[in-house]
Amino acid sequence: MEKPTAIILLSCPDQKGIVATISNFIFQNNGNILDAAQYSAQPENIFLMRIEWELEGFSIPRGEIAKAFSPLAEKFSMKWDLRFSDYEPKIAIFVSRQTYCFHDLILRHRMGDFRGDISLVISNHLDLKLLAEQMGMKFRHYPITKENRLEQEERELKELKKRKIDLVILARYMQILSGRFVDEYRNRIINIHHSFLPAFAGGRPYQQAYDRGVKIIGATSHYVTEKLDEGPIIAQDVNEISHKDSVETMKLKGKDLERTVLAKAVRLHLENRILVYGSKTVIFD
Amino acid sequence: MEKPTAIILLSCPDQKGIVATISNFIFQNNGNILDAAQYSAQPENIFLMRIEWELEGFSIPRGEIAKAFSPLAEKFSMKWDLRFSDYEPKIAIFVSRQTYCFHDLILRHRMGDFRGDISLVISNHLDLKLLAEQMGMKFRHYPITKENRLEQEERELKELKKRKIDLVILARYMQILSGRFVDEYRNRIINIHHSFLPAFAGGRPYQQAYDRGVKIIGATSHYVTEKLDEGPIIAQDVNEISHKDSVETMKLKGKDLERTVLAKAVRLHLENRILVYGSKTVIFD
Amino acid sequence: MEKPTAIILLSCPDQKGIVATISNFIFQNNGNILDAAQYSAQPENIFLMRIEWELEGFSIPRGEIAKAFSPLAEKFSMKWDLRFSDYEPKIAIFVSRQTYCFHDLILRHRMGDFRGDISLVISNHLDLKLLAEQMGMKFRHYPITKENRLEQEERELKELKKRKIDLVILARYMQILSGRFVDEYRNRIINIHHSFLPAFAGGRPYQQAYDRGVKIIGATSHYVTEKLDEGPIIAQDVNEISHKDSVETMKLKGKDLERTVLAKAVRLHLENRILVYGSKTVIFD
Amino acid sequence: MEKPTAIILLSCPDQKGIVATISNFIFQNNGNILDAAQYSAQPENIFLMRIEWELEGFSIPRGEIAKAFSPLAEKFSMKWDLRFSDYEPKIAIFVSRQTYCFHDLILRHRMGDFRGDISLVISNHLDLKLLAEQMGMKFRHYPITKENRLEQEERELKELKKRKIDLVILARYMQILSGRFVDEYRNRIINIHHSFLPAFAGGRPYQQAYDRGVKIIGATSHYVTEKLDEGPIIAQDVNEISHKDSVETMKLKGKDLERTVLAKAVRLHLENRILVYGSKTVIFD
Repeated sequence: MEKPTAIILLSCPDQKGIVATISNFIFQNNGNILDAAQYSAQPENIFLMRIEWELEGFSIPRGEIAKAFSPLAEKFSMKWDLRFSDYEPKIAIFVSRQTYCFHDLILRHRMGDFRGDISLVISNHLDLKLLAEQMGMKFRHYPITKENRLEQEERELKELKKRKIDLVILARYMQILSGRFVDEYRNRIINIHHSFLPAFAGGRPYQQAYDRGVKIIGATSHYVTEKLDEGPIIAQDVNEISHKDSVETMKLKGKDLERTVLAKAVRLHLENRILVYGSKTVIFD
Repeated sequence: MEKPTAIILLSCPDQKGIVATISNFIFQNNGNILDAAQYSAQPENIFLMRIEWELEGFSIPRGEIAKAFSPLAEKFSMKWDLRFSDYEPKIAIFVSRQTYCFHDLILRHRMGDFRGDISLVISNHLDLKLLAEQMGMKFRHYPITKENRLEQEERELKELKKRKIDLVILARYMQILSGRFVDEYRNRIINIHHSFLPAFAGGRPYQQAYDRGVKIIGATSHYVTEKLDEGPIIAQDVNEISHKDSVETMKLKGKDLERTVLAKAVRLHLENRILVYGSKTVIFD
Repeated sequence: MEKPTAIILLSCPDQKGIVATISNFIFQNNGNILDAAQYSAQPENIFLMRIEWELEGFSIPRGEIAKAFSPLAEKFSMKWDLRFSDYEPKIAIFVSRQTYCFHDLILRHRMGDFRGDISLVISNHLDLKLLAEQMGMKFRHYPITKENRLEQEERELKELKKRKIDLVILARYMQILSGRFVDEYRNRIINIHHSFLPAFAGGRPYQQAYDRGVKIIGATSHYVTEKLDEGPIIAQDVNEISHKDSVETMKLKGKDLERTVLAKAVRLHLENRILVYGSKTVIFD
Repeated sequence: MEKPTAIILLSCPDQKGIVATISNFIFQNNGNILDAAQYSAQPENIFLMRIEWELEGFSIPRGEIAKAFSPLAEKFSMKWDLRFSDYEPKIAIFVSRQTYCFHDLILRHRMGDFRGDISLVISNHLDLKLLAEQMGMKFRHYPITKENRLEQEERELKELKKRKIDLVILARYMQILSGRFVDEYRNRIINIHHSFLPAFAGGRPYQQAYDRGVKIIGATSHYVTEKLDEGPIIAQDVNEISHKDSVETMKLKGKDLERTVLAKAVRLHLENRILVYGSKTVIFD
């Protein structure tokens, strides 16, 4: 069992003394820094940092760290989050008819590849109801039509809040979320798109790739924003194809990409390794 | 020294008996098939083939093979080309101010990585004049303005024809060629674009990639058509980047991609391994 | 539903006329060749070929094709196999305690990613008994000790034959098979090794990779031979790592490699795309 | 022109307070930290760090930084180096008959891809003499025989010291260096090996790869130690091959790997991004 750690993710205007001040804060409270990484985004002049230290031996109790850190954060005008490595985030998976990403996430979770509590499955179809319930997850069915979309979203949001969901994973969920929904879960909705974005955004990317005759296909995992397929990219990967590949064999090869890229993005998020600034991510891995 | 071979590249409506007929033609004339590869494009129902056999021992003299093959080609309504592996294609390189692809091609050529006679360098700048001439190539300077573009292209075409140029390589040549020019060298102009097409077509692709926050950059080599950056793709490759990469370091990493992808496309073309159908390529490698 | 095809995989001493003779055989019996690929291995002078044609309309009934092809095969001293695309090979999966490759294969199979009948699971542990049986597979438990190894293998072989198993997949099966076992299933046992062979053969490859400080890890799928980790390689893939990776995170990243590389090898085998010559494979994909 | 920076590379036993102490040192002297990265190697319990800050505005003159930092370094028992980004390291390239890596390095250097002064070329052959001298480099010819090897190495070392060489690049130099030579340039000799080490160490790696039938080839750049091909690995890359590749085409594809991997290693070294501990490297990129 790994020892619990505290992690601060922060961003602020770049200026002298930030690293010194933060590392002093931890050192003077008898903390042992396990990892520290920083990035200065130019020309925006934004300083971003992830710092992780052991809770064991730290002189401030975990419940009071936030309060103790606040004055320092204010001094530098930081946006910041404090996380604890032993917290189990509550996860909801949204899925439509393609279920391989869902199955893959479940399998990885059961194997212990990432931490978290997958407590809710939401779908506009019923295919996974039996399986999800057998595995002890709540399954909610919200069929979507043009007319009821916003209404159903409200129900989804209510369910998410009721269950205190921290992270929404769109595991091949083929409905577009409204701005209101996105806003409630800003930088906490991860989607997998089956192309190398920004190429082939929108529908049927493998067909588009086939028609264009590309020699490489890809998959992209990103946070969802109001603009379809334009959110901050977390992870991408690609695979070589050739003229011999049909749309069908592309889909087959693409599945592997989608599964590994989505899983990578989820793992990075759950390990608190992602900071978003503007329309981009900084990955401290 | 490798033994000379004959290569036929052909396409025709798919139907029974094509492979049998062609392989019989070669076998009955005492030819030894070294390589044969085929592809049937669906739903277009186009059959494409590359077949290569040794000239040594073949009972038809090389000058008469085309004539002997013609009736067979007509029977199947083929579009076809006959090539000989010991022919040295005449190559013109077009280049603007970024010269690393030019240098790379020259170096590979001198090392014997591909066959061909690089006899002409055309540029809208004078930077390479001295070097090209020192290395025994003709250098032609055609500065381009909005007004003189078509006029200069005519001069370029005249020069290409005078020197019987077979292949034009745009090694980071930043001028757009007219439809007339493209038409004269259909499927014989290879361009390198510094992005993973169709993402980031047009100008400043690394800046575009930086702004979008992608995690992978690429390069694409393609035949030039009337539509900018939309010609049949020959080769692509990619490289991982991270938030730490600036536009400058992307350019640095991108150079390696551009050089290797362009060189790969040129080699495939010179080895007669590329067939174009519609807006796509079939690569028999 | 795809139309059923016949596939011949053959190897013989290279000589003139093989392609012509085989394609004539198919053409004269009214067959439509869908794919033909060949390779001439030098300096061994061995010709290898895969040819696939539609059964529909072929004038020889499928039960008599082998007999009709035999004289031609004898003439060229071929080693050859005739396969039909609609045959469902019977598959046994051997597994020890690491079960992610097993789960992955099952999931892919259920999604229809490859054809075949996974009818038997053999393990030296009991972990998967319940699950395998729930999914309708036979589960056989053969615990292995130094003393009983050959004895247990005999039981395994008997079970394989009783169930007419065509293909054995070692999905992280940690026991070494005897020469006798291998001989019974020559080129029909596929193993996944969790390193980029020939680097880090033998036990604990991730620990070996960590100790050596490599920057890339890999996985290798190969046919099993008498010599441990030295059989003909079918597929390999790699992933970048860095000094930040521990043995644990290497294992995590390696799992993805192992799963996709093993699945790729299994798919190539089941689609009859692999020919073995000497200690190597020819992959007609 | 980039502003000059100071870089400290350090390693020491891991303990609390290192980051705080170092960042305070810089902050209190009015320094602006541009980048800081750290790594704690377990189970060795070694802390490694790279920290870079702007010289402009730093209150300690660059000539006195080392002295000022010393007490702090002693307190934590650090091994450390202070570098300045505007220093031009003096580089010697060793080369035998394969010259493409040499040409590639020269081209990159001329294009400004990396900083440094390539002032000396050493070879056991005369092929590059004319070219090197034309380009204003010193060329030294030391033909090697079994008998004169150590003697010639002494001459080489004398030449290196006379010219104050900081970095030796073995750009396909096919002679083995003695322990004495290696010792004089510990962690300052970079070699390129044309395989994915530890696979295919020693001679003729492409032939070895061909004989083994691998599906991927690689190249490895590493610091040279007393043990052939066993030094700390800096960078590796790989390329897919197939059964169709001969040793010749492997060499062709391998050249691209060798050139880019060697160039990457050289760039990382010159940017002071590499720390060696035990037989491994930590790359702060």
